[in-house]
Amino acid sequence: MGDVHDGSPGSGRKPHPFDPLTPVEISYAAEITRKSSENEQIFFRAISLAEPPKNEMVEFLDGEHSGSQDLSYPPRRARVQAYINKTLHELIVNLDTASISSKAPLEGRHSYIDTEYMAQVAAACLADSRIQREIETLKLPEGATVVVEPWAYATDGMKDMQDRWTMVIVKIYRLPSGEHDKIHDEKLEFDRRKIHSNSEYHPDLIQERRTTTKPYHVSQPEGPSFGIDGNHISWEKWTMRVGFNYREGMTLHDVRFEGRSLFYRLSLAEMFVPYGDPRCPYPRKAAFDLGNDGAGINANNLKLGCDCLGHIKYFDGWLSTSSGEPLKMPNVICCHEIDDGILWKHTNFRTGNAVVTRSRVLVLQTIITVSNYEYIFLFYFQQDGSIFYEVRATGIMSTAPIDIDTKVPWGTIVAPGVLAPYHQHIFCLRIDPAIDGVQNSLVVEESHPIPFTGEGDEYNPFGVGYTTKSEYVQNEAGLDLDFNTNRTFKIVNEGVINATTVTPVGFKLLPHYSQLLLAHPNSWHGKRAEYTSHAVWVTRHHDDELFPAGTFTMQSSGGEGIASWIQQREKGSKSSVRNEDIVVWHTFGSTHNPRIEDWPVMPCEKMVVGLKPVNFFKGNPALDVPISTQEKNRSVLVHGGQ
Amino acid sequence: MGDVHDGSPGSGRKPHPFDPLTPVEISYAAEITRKSSENEQIFFRAISLAEPPKNEMVEFLDGEHSGSQDLSYPPRRARVQAYINKTLHELIVNLDTASISSKAPLEGRHSYIDTEYMAQVAAACLADSRIQREIETLKLPEGATVVVEPWAYATDGMKDMQDRWTMVIVKIYRLPSGEHDKIHDEKLEFDRRKIHSNSEYHPDLIQERRTTTKPYHVSQPEGPSFGIDGNHISWEKWTMRVGFNYREGMTLHDVRFEGRSLFYRLSLAEMFVPYGDPRCPYPRKAAFDLGNDGAGINANNLKLGCDCLGHIKYFDGWLSTSSGEPLKMPNVICCHEIDDGILWKHTNFRTGNAVVTRSRVLVLQTIITVSNYEYIFLFYFQQDGSIFYEVRATGIMSTAPIDIDTKVPWGTIVAPGVLAPYHQHIFCLRIDPAIDGVQNSLVVEESHPIPFTGEGDEYNPFGVGYTTKSEYVQNEAGLDLDFNTNRTFKIVNEGVINATTVTPVGFKLLPHYSQLLLAHPNSWHGKRAEYTSHAVWVTRHHDDELFPAGTFTMQSSGGEGIASWIQQREKGSKSSVRNEDIVVWHTFGSTHNPRIEDWPVMPCEKMVVGLKPVNFFKGNPALDVPISTQEKNRSVLVHGGQ
Repeated sequence: MGDVHDGSPGSGRKPHPFDPLTPVEISYAAEITRKSSENEQIFFRAISLAEPPKNEMVEFLDGEHSGSQDLSYPPRRARVQAYINKTLHELIVNLDTASISSKAPLEGRHSYIDTEYMAQVAAACLADSRIQREIETLKLPEGATVVVEPWAYATDGMKDMQDRWTMVIVKIYRLPSGEHDKIHDEKLEFDRRKIHSNSEYHPDLIQERRTTTKPYHVSQPEGPSFGIDGNHISWEKWTMRVGFNYREGMTLHDVRFEGRSLFYRLSLAEMFVPYGDPRCPYPRKAAFDLGNDGAGINANNLKLGCDCLGHIKYFDGWLSTSSGEPLKMPNVICCHEIDDGILWKHTNFRTGNAVVTRSRVLVLQTIITVSNYEYIFLFYFQQDGSIFYEVRATGIMSTAPIDIDTKVPWGTIVAPGVLAPYHQHIFCLRIDPAIDGVQNSLVVEESHPIPFTGEGDEYNPFGVGYTTKSEYVQNEAGLDLDFNTNRTFKIVNEGVINATTVTPVGFKLLPHYSQLLLAHPNSWHGKRAEYTSHAVWVTRHHDDELFPAGTFTMQSSGGEGIASWIQQREKGSKSSVRNEDIVVWHTFGSTHNPRIEDWPVMPCEKMVVGLKPVNFFKGNPALDVPISTQEKNRSVLVHGGQ
Repeated sequence: MGDVHDGSPGSGRKPHPFDPLTPVEISYAAEITRKSSENEQIFFRAISLAEPPKNEMVEFLDGEHSGSQDLSYPPRRARVQAYINKTLHELIVNLDTASISSKAPLEGRHSYIDTEYMAQVAAACLADSRIQREIETLKLPEGATVVVEPWAYATDGMKDMQDRWTMVIVKIYRLPSGEHDKIHDEKLEFDRRKIHSNSEYHPDLIQERRTTTKPYHVSQPEGPSFGIDGNHISWEKWTMRVGFNYREGMTLHDVRFEGRSLFYRLSLAEMFVPYGDPRCPYPRKAAFDLGNDGAGINANNLKLGCDCLGHIKYFDGWLSTSSGEPLKMPNVICCHEIDDGILWKHTNFRTGNAVVTRSRVLVLQTIITVSNYEYIFLFYFQQDGSIFYEVRATGIMSTAPIDIDTKVPWGTIVAPGVLAPYHQHIFCLRIDPAIDGVQNSLVVEESHPIPFTGEGDEYNPFGVGYTTKSEYVQNEAGLDLDFNTNRTFKIVNEGVINATTVTPVGFKLLPHYSQLLLAHPNSWHGKRAEYTSHAVWVTRHHDDELFPAGTFTMQSSGGEGIASWIQQREKGSKSSVRNEDIVVWHTFGSTHNPRIEDWPVMPCEKMVVGLKPVNFFKGNPALDVPISTQEKNRSVLVHGGQ
């Protein structure tokens, strides 16, 4: 079926193996799935690209980048997740041969949650007579609307979700309202003092907005410096492909600089948001925002002039409906440039001659809304060969009621009767490196003083000398950060030696220093979010290991994450990560003990991770960036005042 | 002498007590000094504002901000540093009474270094016959120019600088060139293989520059959002005064938000750059870039359209010549706005309604060139009440020769024969807070799990609960960072309680996590740079304690820094920092083990420190920021490609 590749709007050409499924391919995958399950009831959950195995793709990319005219395309395949007769299944569908490559029931697994289901849950709650009776006891003013706030609660080992077809009110908890009443099982009179004026963030509901902020425009008279060809981006010396799927949202593939391979794949792999309130039922409040909700499913439709300035290229995403139709997600990724101040500068003090270059940065941005919170995910590509990954947390904090005139030690009162409980946001960035090829190693380097001695090998008579100590990580492991020793994680290719420095070429991780999981390792949170116990992990590459808390996080009970993978392999020979195809994972985030300044809507909290070349190039790769001049930049002098 | 205040160009009004000395005031201070030392030879080093004592200023500011018509101005005073008959002196000159308030000889002290002196040293070296003989042995090609690279070397306790009037070659060291030849005292043949092609960074000397970077303009059709009145800046809800002096460069004073006092003074207090090469003479290579060189003296003349984009206000600085004349330093500080992406966003998932605000940021930037290196110092003021302080290190690394085919463990070979030695940049930001008044305290808060127990006071049956533990620092101390416990440093006013959160109002420090001094505490580096042994310090405020490595760092020998101040006071009652006028100091920086990508000119390495309100306001102070719209922002859609 030649038509299968015509789905990419405006292009009849063959998709690149990294291209997400086109709308036509999504429909086709659904059609093949339906045909294979005739007379069965099918409820589609996700139809997305089954990325080709890395070993096939590496061969393909080698051919592609060497300009081969005879590229062998791997089969185009879809990964289909669907309820077939109410049992969750995963199928791999070969679109080239119109056949099912594999089909497996996923007993005991749950799919992600969606707004449709949440609306059904909310309706079922409101329809329940016991809940109606509870609402009556509140004696709400006439005309008041009761809004249900549904949450996909975590397992607590007591009573877990059965499946999405069983809609039953299991138990009604009254929320605790002070430190010492742990659970309100007894009937309590509702404290009417809790009813206060609103906390509003919406401009239509706020009295006065400041008028002091003058317009600020970015103009690019010759257009952007980037070039777009389908999902391929070229900018300055960089090339890469952008991907998108329902779970990870934006993904990046085959990232290169001056044609040299750097990263095979970059993706946000998981995010865990556990709350620190120990009172029942709050220990169930813990979200896997990728595994349970999906960064792609919840991606915002970005608006020109609102979410970014300057010349903007938007990428659409395509997901699927429950009936297997393609679902367009417009403007889920934006691509634009920013100016980031000075890139490098030097004034020769002997001549007074100053040279300045400005840093132009390519930004790829996606924003997701997961119920109350917003997350902004940004990749920044710099002219000097470095990449920064930034997360901005914004939106509205999830709150809980609290009695007037009381306090709890696990939250901040942000408005009368409103408790913003302590919680953590713990992200995992998956770095699948290909530093001048896929055989890479991880080096841990630290800076240590030379012993303060007189003579001999340890020559440090003045006590000022220091050296670096490097150690190659030999086997899969979880590792931790230590700024006190300037501990640095370098991904290197031992087979490619920089001719000048006489060291392996590499990239180093600039971590975000943050607290790891506060919940106990033996708690459900600890068991389910294994990646949150170390800041850096290194594993051998496996095509099916994309999600460090496991592939199915909804109601998961542990033993399926990155620590378990490593443990299962550590007795065998498959555990070596020296000169192998490896993956590096960085766990980072924020212990968010709310401030009142985060209410009623939270100003962005930024977290930044970097990847920086270290003895990879022959010198500063931004040496040839144009010199900054007023003729080009046209700034305006502000007079007066002084 | 009424004229003394007329020096401010275009303004005849009385200077604000925080205003730097005007040119007329500088001349007048020199004149008074000369009159007081008739028949003596005077060589001026610095004539700068002697800031009024804080206790006087607090009273003045209270009056000023309450709109008092009857302000009592503290006396205008100059601090004069000068060699009088070749002995360094410091004088305080009262400009209102045209009198000398104090005059003290500074026996054994050295002033900062300057380019004039460095040129004299270089000339003295080249004129020395022994050095000429050494140069001859190099057999340089005809027409070659020998350039002397002068460095203000640190003390090593062996042979220190006498004074600037004694210009004598003490000893000639041959530089070591491999790991095992520690000192080349014996005569060695020069390895001519070290002579290589140039490492050039200057655009005029580089063959090709990229042409792919398209123009990027910032236009502000209604002008900037800031207002300037002399050295007073108002922007959005912020007000502050900018200062400038020869040593610290840019300083900020009386920083307020919505009229509420936040910081009395913010300044970079010191920077130490020790090198890690243990071989003689390199242990002497260690620079106090503020104390020995001066951030003001070395401030760049910023150029419109080169160092910043958009609408720029430049502030000039005024220093003084050796004869006491005012010396204009044009454009030493720039003030402009940038767009920093999204400030806050929320989409109501029930209605699909999205609200986005963009973050406008006020930038105050100054750039210094200290011989080879450049440092860019930036204050960022945000609409949400937070302040960020950023340091960017750029410029050219200080290098040393190294033999061909050799390696050392304390440096990177960045070009054949060129060693870039390991070194550290250790900064100290001085934070003089006035959080709703000058009586402040420092709280150290950590996040800890609640013990995983069943019942009782430690209620945490599911092992997920955590709380914060706060401790007030009682006495002056040096403290350290710990991201593993989310250790947070809050400057609070215990006398002002947030009515909603029921906690003291405060600001928290967002530290830059970095390694402290690698040199041994008992080394000269350790003794001289006391502030480098802890990441956070808190002291009682003293008007004369601005410099945490001591006021006179040139050839200093230790015992004069922040640890010594604390030690001298810790037995007395003056050590309490609870509800007192305190100062918080943050030591941070970078262990710079060079990459070849830093050569021949280094792309900026960024270090960022933040100050963020924590339960200071009644809610998000940026709630009223205008909503981002295309109508206002006028972005341009890039079509095609997909």
